[in-house]
Amino acid sequence: MSGQTKIILASASPRRRELLAQIGLEFEVQVSNVEEKAAAHSPGELVEELSRQKAEAVFALTDDPAQAVLVIGADTVVALGEEILGKPADEAEAVSMLRRLSGASHQVYTGVTLLYREAGGKTAPAPVKQKTFHEMTRVQFYPMSRQEIESYAANGEPLDKAGAYGIQGVFARYVQGLEGDYYNVVGLPVGRLYQELKDFVNFGGLCEKSGNL
Amino acid sequence: MSGQTKIILASASPRRRELLAQIGLEFEVQVSNVEEKAAAHSPGELVEELSRQKAEAVFALTDDPAQAVLVIGADTVVALGEEILGKPADEAEAVSMLRRLSGASHQVYTGVTLLYREAGGKTAPAPVKQKTFHEMTRVQFYPMSRQEIESYAANGEPLDKAGAYGIQGVFARYVQGLEGDYYNVVGLPVGRLYQELKDFVNFGGLCEKSGNL
Repeated sequence: MSGQTKIILASASPRRRELLAQIGLEFEVQVSNVEEKAAAHSPGELVEELSRQKAEAVFALTDDPAQAVLVIGADTVVALGEEILGKPADEAEAVSMLRRLSGASHQVYTGVTLLYREAGGKTAPAPVKQKTFHEMTRVQFYPMSRQEIESYAANGEPLDKAGAYGIQGVFARYVQGLEGDYYNVVGLPVGRLYQELKDFVNFGGLCEKSGNL
Repeated sequence: MSGQTKIILASASPRRRELLAQIGLEFEVQVSNVEEKAAAHSPGELVEELSRQKAEAVFALTDDPAQAVLVIGADTVVALGEEILGKPADEAEAVSMLRRLSGASHQVYTGVTLLYREAGGKTAPAPVKQKTFHEMTRVQFYPMSRQEIESYAANGEPLDKAGAYGIQGVFARYVQGLEGDYYNVVGLPVGRLYQELKDFVNFGGLCEKSGNL
């Protein structure tokens, strides 16, 4: 059990990278280009399923059974009533999404999958442990004028974000409040993630920096 | 009515500075060293009163009636039941505060005062408009171990923060969720502030960058 656990974030999102660093973990980023597919589900089941696919695809690329490894996969969607909003395809779709979210309340779901394997021998890899969960946060927007919506959509920020907005930027102007974890809206529920890791990885110190996990 | 409004943030907090910049305002920072004093109040009345004192002290230093000016004052406290927690005096007090907040729910109050004067003639300054409000956010912490509390208190981060924690840093590990505006917990309710400014400053464009206010 010597050596540190290698932590891999299976996500290309710069926001998730910042959040994981914020809570003191040291990690690498690795992304698979597996096509994510999911049948119709509730939003919670959907993000769990997609986070699992991302984590499994990256876990499959790890090739040293003597190295303890933890892979973290995550996926976020915005739900408005029965409907799921992903990333807008273009500015026009961003405007249309923001119009529907304006002055209303919606839900943000982030699913997280943890895949963990302790260090084993070269011939007998240790078994793989898995944990998947999701968090939901309700978000309430102030009413936005047509000009405010068009101006925000035109700045390009919505295009890589589920629901066409980023709560951590200038869009904070339009957020009245929320119920749940703020960081879950940014893309990773770091409070829940940290608590799950304390239970899941049953030995001290995932890495130097997080020695007090 | 030519010329832009000069916006002054009457707060030394680097977090408030970042938040005001985040929503696209251009401003200067000016701090008075007036001793803040407030009689016993409810937390909401207290932060409103202290924000008013900060804004008024800085407003009194403005000396060009021909220049339109907006001063923003703010104050934040943490309330646990009937008790108000300010900034801890030292590491031991930080540990004691965090022990009480651990595994429990508390309230964060931020009061904001806006003082605004349109550009007037040299001899007849325009009248001063004032608006004061506060926002409250409930915050729920996960239970923290003694080691987690002591390790966080020892890193020095709690010392300049009401309630001995900063939600925007590594402390996110211990935050289960909240109800209300996240940025209110950081120190400035920027959503509400932006909406109030739209009503309060009744002409287009506080400054170049915020032309779409």
